[in-house]
Amino acid sequence: MWRELLPVGRDGTTGGYRRHAWTAADGECRAWFAEQAASRGLAYEVDRNGNQWAWLGDPAAGDAVVIGSHLDSVPDGGAYDGPLGVVSSFAALDALRERGVTPGRPLAVVNFGDEEGARFGVACVGSRLLTGVLDPEHARGLRDGDGVLLADAMERAGQDPAAIGRDDERLARIGAFVELHVEQGRYLADTPHPVGVASAIWPHGRWRFDFRGEANHAGTTRLGDRDDPMLAYAATVLSARELARTAGALATFGKIRVEPNGTNAIASLVTAWLDSRAADSATLDTLVKEIAGAAEGAEVTRESYTPVVDFDVPLRDRLSRVLGGVPVLPTGAGHDAGILSSAVPTAMLFVRNPTGVSHSPYEYAEEPDCLAGIVALADVLQDLL
Amino acid sequence: MWRELLPVGRDGTTGGYRRHAWTAADGECRAWFAEQAASRGLAYEVDRNGNQWAWLGDPAAGDAVVIGSHLDSVPDGGAYDGPLGVVSSFAALDALRERGVTPGRPLAVVNFGDEEGARFGVACVGSRLLTGVLDPEHARGLRDGDGVLLADAMERAGQDPAAIGRDDERLARIGAFVELHVEQGRYLADTPHPVGVASAIWPHGRWRFDFRGEANHAGTTRLGDRDDPMLAYAATVLSARELARTAGALATFGKIRVEPNGTNAIASLVTAWLDSRAADSATLDTLVKEIAGAAEGAEVTRESYTPVVDFDVPLRDRLSRVLGGVPVLPTGAGHDAGILSSAVPTAMLFVRNPTGVSHSPYEYAEEPDCLAGIVALADVLQDLL
Repeated sequence: MWRELLPVGRDGTTGGYRRHAWTAADGECRAWFAEQAASRGLAYEVDRNGNQWAWLGDPAAGDAVVIGSHLDSVPDGGAYDGPLGVVSSFAALDALRERGVTPGRPLAVVNFGDEEGARFGVACVGSRLLTGVLDPEHARGLRDGDGVLLADAMERAGQDPAAIGRDDERLARIGAFVELHVEQGRYLADTPHPVGVASAIWPHGRWRFDFRGEANHAGTTRLGDRDDPMLAYAATVLSARELARTAGALATFGKIRVEPNGTNAIASLVTAWLDSRAADSATLDTLVKEIAGAAEGAEVTRESYTPVVDFDVPLRDRLSRVLGGVPVLPTGAGHDAGILSSAVPTAMLFVRNPTGVSHSPYEYAEEPDCLAGIVALADVLQDLL
Repeated sequence: MWRELLPVGRDGTTGGYRRHAWTAADGECRAWFAEQAASRGLAYEVDRNGNQWAWLGDPAAGDAVVIGSHLDSVPDGGAYDGPLGVVSSFAALDALRERGVTPGRPLAVVNFGDEEGARFGVACVGSRLLTGVLDPEHARGLRDGDGVLLADAMERAGQDPAAIGRDDERLARIGAFVELHVEQGRYLADTPHPVGVASAIWPHGRWRFDFRGEANHAGTTRLGDRDDPMLAYAATVLSARELARTAGALATFGKIRVEPNGTNAIASLVTAWLDSRAADSATLDTLVKEIAGAAEGAEVTRESYTPVVDFDVPLRDRLSRVLGGVPVLPTGAGHDAGILSSAVPTAMLFVRNPTGVSHSPYEYAEEPDCLAGIVALADVLQDLL
């Protein structure tokens, strides 16, 4: 299974993946999913929002256990973020069959569409539409970098964009959702455990900082006569790091735009985006306020904010017990599981990432750890079913 | 004169000028120059390198006094950088005639083509070609942002690109060149003098700094596990400023490129360009070495370097004496006068800039100071002729 997926959407130069929603590479991944369902005799269907489902047992019976993740990628992403969860789900189902388990509840493997949001700028589109978190009209109007509408991209891929939106009937069938995912940090790497259970997704947000100064000639303007916003930006980058460290939180400036961005021109405007996350919203709010305070004179605009997601406590405790007391850890990244948790009891399993590297061609997990993830997922299913 | 030029090539939104070489706006400026020559009965000609000349007296007589500057602009440039020198030259000539001065030497007003290099990336193309500093073959092959060759742009503007190159015959006619220019700093603003004389152009250069790190997820990578090149960049920006201040020199980071430049991605590469200038090359070399040392681990590449230009001392002293002991000041900016100085005795006059702002729509000089500049230039001419 894993080997079949490896070459799909891979860039020959970087070795990274470019499996963006509703592209040819994404279509190949989706075709692979349909084949996996067929080869196991699972009932295959695509829902109104473009998410793929492979059913064992009668979906209409309700209280189904759903496992899965996503197959799309960020630009130059790694092979594990998403696909590890889908591949492990089919493998766990195979393991259950080998163990001779007869499920007492319907079981489904899911591939959520457009999780990364790499093409249209909004993450978790498939799960957000399913749960009604994302307005269908707004979603249809999203455009990619070439100006292509999400509605048109879906239509070209054989999906009816008029049909997207909250799907209560489908949500009502689900008794629990468990997403397995490669860890995107090094929490487990410092433990003897190949698998952990998620406690929560940290609240996170994005803030735009506009540092304004005065355009001027870099070769003739005395230092004392300058109003160079690059200096305030640089000081803010260093302050943000130190403030985040003190708060036990995360703060990153990874995107910047400079005007006029000329070698011999003092900048007139530096716009930079802060990504910040913390264990709770009070810490996050305080941290961002402190960073904004350090950014003297900058105009700070909140562009997005996602509150904390606490995964279902009984389900989380059950998984942890079944797996014999594995670590319970929070994550700073958004996931379809975070979206689903607003509608159904949801949990996540993380597979150890030895380097912590993610969203990069160098992202990986050791094979024994991946196999331990499959066993853990099978154990959880056996218990839940 | 001034009022006729004001609307040409002006952006309606920013109020800045976009008079780039061999564009329609540049053509309008050049037509204005030809009209000014005609209305004064001056002999108008365009040389092989696209520079415009307006002659009073017989050019072939030799030992001519040439005054002038350029009419093109940087993107969103001001009204004064360049045009003030050309307009003041025609006005000084008018003043001489009013004074009844009969020139004992030929006199020319010049408009050097493509001084700013805003379109093809190389500054002072007209004067560099004239003096042989720029290889004609290299010049013809320069391309603008749309891929248009300089050779094709010149041809479309009625200029023969095959004819460009060093013009010894023309250079041999020139006994002295004096360029009047708006000051691009606030040196004169702190003095009672509306006009100053240039001593030298500081040596200056451009260095590319490549800060490499590791792409990673901004939401999940612990601070201690990061290799974020934005931090090293930020620290370098602040160090560069402090080191330049200590050295009494200039250092500016005004251009930056970040990969992948995503809000939730720790940067893998930050490329930034340092513009640095100092009074002498030893100071400049030491400063850049110190900044490179502060930029731990960055790869530093010198992209360009222009040695110091010391203007002709006898001519400079003569101007200063004629003007009654005005300030003599260096500048950090390149000029056609800096190029010409390698071939003929050259001097510059600066007109006071109350804000020091340059290369910006807000660049300006007070009208009385501009008039004082014209009188100074006329005085200088009267003495030289």
